[in-house]
Amino acid sequence: MERVGIGLLGYGTVGAGVGKLLRENADEIRLATGKDVYLRRVCEKDPGFRAEGLDAALLTANFDDLVGDPEIDIVVELIGGIEPARTFQLAALKAGKAVVTANKQLLSQHGAELLQTAEDNGVHLRFEASAVGAVPVIKVLRESLAAAEVTGIMGIVNGTTNYILSAMAQTGAEYGPTLRRAQELGYAEADPTEDVSGKDAAAKMAILASIAFHSRVNLADVEHEGIESVTDADVAHGKALGLVPKLLGVAKLIDGRMNVRVYPSFIPADHPLAGVSGAYNAVFLESEAFDKLMLFGPGAGGTPTASAVIGDIISIVNTAKTGFVRNCTCYKSLGFYPNGEVVSSFYARLQVADKSGVLAQISSLFGDEDVSIRSMVQTGAGENAELVLVFHPVKEAAFFRALERVGALPVVHGKPSVIRLEG
Amino acid sequence: MERVGIGLLGYGTVGAGVGKLLRENADEIRLATGKDVYLRRVCEKDPGFRAEGLDAALLTANFDDLVGDPEIDIVVELIGGIEPARTFQLAALKAGKAVVTANKQLLSQHGAELLQTAEDNGVHLRFEASAVGAVPVIKVLRESLAAAEVTGIMGIVNGTTNYILSAMAQTGAEYGPTLRRAQELGYAEADPTEDVSGKDAAAKMAILASIAFHSRVNLADVEHEGIESVTDADVAHGKALGLVPKLLGVAKLIDGRMNVRVYPSFIPADHPLAGVSGAYNAVFLESEAFDKLMLFGPGAGGTPTASAVIGDIISIVNTAKTGFVRNCTCYKSLGFYPNGEVVSSFYARLQVADKSGVLAQISSLFGDEDVSIRSMVQTGAGENAELVLVFHPVKEAAFFRALERVGALPVVHGKPSVIRLEG
Repeated sequence: MERVGIGLLGYGTVGAGVGKLLRENADEIRLATGKDVYLRRVCEKDPGFRAEGLDAALLTANFDDLVGDPEIDIVVELIGGIEPARTFQLAALKAGKAVVTANKQLLSQHGAELLQTAEDNGVHLRFEASAVGAVPVIKVLRESLAAAEVTGIMGIVNGTTNYILSAMAQTGAEYGPTLRRAQELGYAEADPTEDVSGKDAAAKMAILASIAFHSRVNLADVEHEGIESVTDADVAHGKALGLVPKLLGVAKLIDGRMNVRVYPSFIPADHPLAGVSGAYNAVFLESEAFDKLMLFGPGAGGTPTASAVIGDIISIVNTAKTGFVRNCTCYKSLGFYPNGEVVSSFYARLQVADKSGVLAQISSLFGDEDVSIRSMVQTGAGENAELVLVFHPVKEAAFFRALERVGALPVVHGKPSVIRLEG
Repeated sequence: MERVGIGLLGYGTVGAGVGKLLRENADEIRLATGKDVYLRRVCEKDPGFRAEGLDAALLTANFDDLVGDPEIDIVVELIGGIEPARTFQLAALKAGKAVVTANKQLLSQHGAELLQTAEDNGVHLRFEASAVGAVPVIKVLRESLAAAEVTGIMGIVNGTTNYILSAMAQTGAEYGPTLRRAQELGYAEADPTEDVSGKDAAAKMAILASIAFHSRVNLADVEHEGIESVTDADVAHGKALGLVPKLLGVAKLIDGRMNVRVYPSFIPADHPLAGVSGAYNAVFLESEAFDKLMLFGPGAGGTPTASAVIGDIISIVNTAKTGFVRNCTCYKSLGFYPNGEVVSSFYARLQVADKSGVLAQISSLFGDEDVSIRSMVQTGAGENAELVLVFHPVKEAAFFRALERVGALPVVHGKPSVIRLEG
């Protein structure tokens, strides 16, 4: 039986998971591919590196040992970060080896270069684990839905922020203490910035939007807002309105142009994404052809991510030698739709002085910009009244112009809270 | 560019959808496959058949025109039912043509014969649209998760029953009127038996379980209960307990054996499947490797189903000529785990006379079989009292033995309502 050698770059949690799945599911993989897929070599930069269950004879500290080994057909890069991952991937691709990676930062910033290099060398570059962990959304987009025009993506693509917002919704607690508890439980890192700022989600959305819209989206193209400013008061008001807070990656195809962003949103409690709680991820896709599809699963974790890597390996082995490799599915150049022109629905919460004429003043300023109020609820009284507003869909630029004028009114205290409504 | 001719057997809603997607997305398919995939011929048994947008020159009433045409590489069977679909599929496979089908009845009853014939002739047989409409669960199971041991499947795989149960939960209405409204709205057929009895779901679960467990499951192996006996009272009691009613296909791998059934269940309102409402379908998968995955989407409809057919066509085109065709993934022979031995949780509702000693009598009969009551709520009084019981997990045989004895008590009126708890 033909053998397929795997060279593993990085043997952390995911790498060890890949090794374990290759070992324990060798029969299943043989039956799925007709080939003997085996771990040929592992590269870890520390020459003294050892790991339980890993034959030390497979270890090397020199990446050239992977690139130069003719028995290695597929290099799996799991070290993360930009360098040396980029240099290693390029070297592997140029040596005619397929590459599988979970590296979202690299893909979302240097995807074009890597995919073009893969294409030029007639080899596959696969990166399912870079976007939504174990959830095979890239494969579904590339293969099952290849003939469908995807018009919208809404993704819960960051487990840390989903855990925090789910916990806030469940307990009513504030953001700060909830983040700290998430850190204690291991759901958030010591420095959570990359997650809570939305940057991690933005990298994943750049990858997903590129695949779905067949047009290159880089990390820099994805504006992102985080969850730091979501308050317990907003979460409570949302709950009363039947809404659930989520950090969403939202990619829309509007008039043939793309708008890709990450921001905290309220979604209806009966929306399929509302049931995605804790550290789980999900991607909700829309298209005229298939209506709505959602894929849900763990967004992180050693074994789930390793499972996605194995899926990519099987995919490569099964389509090798068809004489057709297509990595660069970004054959369009769609351009971006400006944020201000996007029509969105908003929730806003204002601290106001409860004086006669205040509501009229506020309504009139919104009215000047044709921003139409759908519902308004006032709670409290005196100087500490609170106004919760929900708006009809409106162009974002007009909304924010009106909001700025409202926020400048002497009767409005502090900075208004604003959360978009999706779904 | 190499051409791939498609022969379409049946030009109803789904067939017309396939024709439309092939036409309108020819460029996308070319970019995804590197080949020119085109509609070569359409077989409809009525020689006078004509359809808008379909070139009459492509039509034939004779299936042999598809089998005998060397330009046809893939036959798409969309006529449904057992015969002549079976004969046609076998003829196409023996002529060396790949087959794509949406025919769940045929696959769940003659899958072994068809898959073996495909294997013997070295051609692909694909049937994504037969299970969960547009949702690519078979592809994900076969490819992305090929190396993962799936241990459980819970599926909402019938849109009609999901529509009816969702509507009952939302409106509080009874089953009968809700079914009639579903029929008026086109969500249920004039003769809804196949759907409401759970038989349609059973056929789909047979297909899914065969793929997931790598062991043949036929329709006859899947015991099914329908939703006809679910009452508005049960739905209301469930709601008070935070539970949502769903007709679930449940496939479990227990001690290396399979248990595959369809029955109405209560699931927690915060379970991902609880948010799958209306005519949508979803499949929830469990495995140690990937934890939990869920795929959600439309279970029926011309274009969504056609989209799944196109996904299969692309899959075949992309893996053609790799010298490896594996259709018979049922390489295991696992056997079935007896229903009575399965450990399940139950909800039960009894009409009882509110007399002293009744609760003690009932508790004691359950206790005799080691059936442990988790919660008990009594409403009403006198001869019309109602007892709602929720039980700790228990072997089904013991539960039903105890329930039979309880039901035979003179103080218990009518037949107890029983609904399993899942998730």
